[in-house]
Amino acid sequence: MKLATAKLLNGEQFVGVILGDKIIHIKKAEELYNGESSFPNCMQQVIDQPSSIELLNKLLENIGSKITKCSYQLDDVTLEAPIPTPRKNIFCVGKNYVDHAIEMGSEADIPEDIIVFTKAPTTVLGHEGTVLNHRPLTEQLDYEGELAVVIGKKGRGISEDEASSYIFGYTIINDITARDLQAKHKQFFIGKSLDTTCPMGPWIVHHSGIQDANNLNITTKINGEVRQDSNTKNCIFSIEKIISILSQGITLEPGDIIATGTPAGVGKGFKPPKFLRPGDVMEVTVEGIGTLVNKLEK
Amino acid sequence: MKLATAKLLNGEQFVGVILGDKIIHIKKAEELYNGESSFPNCMQQVIDQPSSIELLNKLLENIGSKITKCSYQLDDVTLEAPIPTPRKNIFCVGKNYVDHAIEMGSEADIPEDIIVFTKAPTTVLGHEGTVLNHRPLTEQLDYEGELAVVIGKKGRGISEDEASSYIFGYTIINDITARDLQAKHKQFFIGKSLDTTCPMGPWIVHHSGIQDANNLNITTKINGEVRQDSNTKNCIFSIEKIISILSQGITLEPGDIIATGTPAGVGKGFKPPKFLRPGDVMEVTVEGIGTLVNKLEK
Repeated sequence: MKLATAKLLNGEQFVGVILGDKIIHIKKAEELYNGESSFPNCMQQVIDQPSSIELLNKLLENIGSKITKCSYQLDDVTLEAPIPTPRKNIFCVGKNYVDHAIEMGSEADIPEDIIVFTKAPTTVLGHEGTVLNHRPLTEQLDYEGELAVVIGKKGRGISEDEASSYIFGYTIINDITARDLQAKHKQFFIGKSLDTTCPMGPWIVHHSGIQDANNLNITTKINGEVRQDSNTKNCIFSIEKIISILSQGITLEPGDIIATGTPAGVGKGFKPPKFLRPGDVMEVTVEGIGTLVNKLEK
Repeated sequence: MKLATAKLLNGEQFVGVILGDKIIHIKKAEELYNGESSFPNCMQQVIDQPSSIELLNKLLENIGSKITKCSYQLDDVTLEAPIPTPRKNIFCVGKNYVDHAIEMGSEADIPEDIIVFTKAPTTVLGHEGTVLNHRPLTEQLDYEGELAVVIGKKGRGISEDEASSYIFGYTIINDITARDLQAKHKQFFIGKSLDTTCPMGPWIVHHSGIQDANNLNITTKINGEVRQDSNTKNCIFSIEKIISILSQGITLEPGDIIATGTPAGVGKGFKPPKFLRPGDVMEVTVEGIGTLVNKLEK
């Protein structure tokens, strides 16, 4: 099941389920079915209420032909980031693919322990949103296609065995990075947190729709050219390991987003580097989720 | 003016103004004065509404003897962190005092460019709250007394000259750090983000109450022993510079918290190191603000 945050032309924001080229307005569907609706208008609340997914499944099973009365063509709505304003910074795992760690330096860069940095909520941008080019602040914007995990349940000290039960679903993130600022300011935060540099989406796939998130193909294209082409099975730290290590001293909460790292093929890894240029179109595809498309401001 | 978030025995949370050993319940004061009240119960909303400070000043000027009917002894309330659940991670400036940069390594550690990392909102703890000792996850918890700035107005690309007009007020932070995890995980985030490792408070002093935040004495005592003793004038990057550099590509928002760095005298700087031990009492004092006291779990 693909859950999206969408906006109508009149500005109304709603949570929808994607079915083919349509999006079902869940709150309206429940109103049609029940006469009234308690379904939230915001994804954070959907994640906060474990009963919302059951309700949703029941609705979709029973609504029948009324579905046409509460659905829109995807072309007629704007997809926002699935969680447009996360309640805290996005957790990001650095150098989680061996080949990427090496392209960023040498074999000495392959981490023995997980590396985590964050991106501010002000970086978040939806599918097809335009990424600011931030010139002249940076001349070295770079893409990083990543699978991201959305946490569904509060917990600390989570074991690897339990970790999967804390996952609400999965989405795609493009962890756009200003390489010059990342190097200049030592800690990654500033180079990773420029406004609009965390495109996310196009939707969240509920965990029930992904059989093995540690075995998904992931590719990034720039202007149609394949730059990153790997599989999440090549991650050094599996999703369960990431959740377990991170949560040993840090409480994870519903709606927390963890980007799991990027494979080789980022712009900085090429000789000479292939940094993003104004107008470039970035497409990150993760198997079973979809394709996140964004353009860099001209 | 000292603004605090306090909790009554019955669990009610309110925003109050500290007057001597009393705290005035602002919402109740307005009700007594006006018959009704629109004053928010939460500090984030106070900061979001620029008119709230004017209203507050008017109330305090006019309430007269009715003040006794809406005030509590400080001993009868619990002070929460002034912003108990920030809407994003806390921004923290690293190595912003020359002597601290050197004690963490050598003169090569003195930064030419600002270093910024973050602490998750789940780290936040109030005055007199108990910091978890997180054993056996870490054996090297360390204190870092810091002046923190609270942002009052949304902005990006803020110049140094304008920066002071974006400040709502000031508070104190103890940026407690697990040195072993900080080193192990390379990027600072994990070692800086264990639950309860960001004591904050006891209150926010409104900017109108601080003449020059770049010239305030700052001390940290552990069990009564002075460990850190400096002045914010020794910062490499002034508050205005921090706001300006940080905001060049990152939108700052009302309620954002920026910890400005810690002076020499942290536990790791001693030979042998003086890391925190279970039961230790930490007191961070910043001139014109107050003293933030916390105990490490036994």
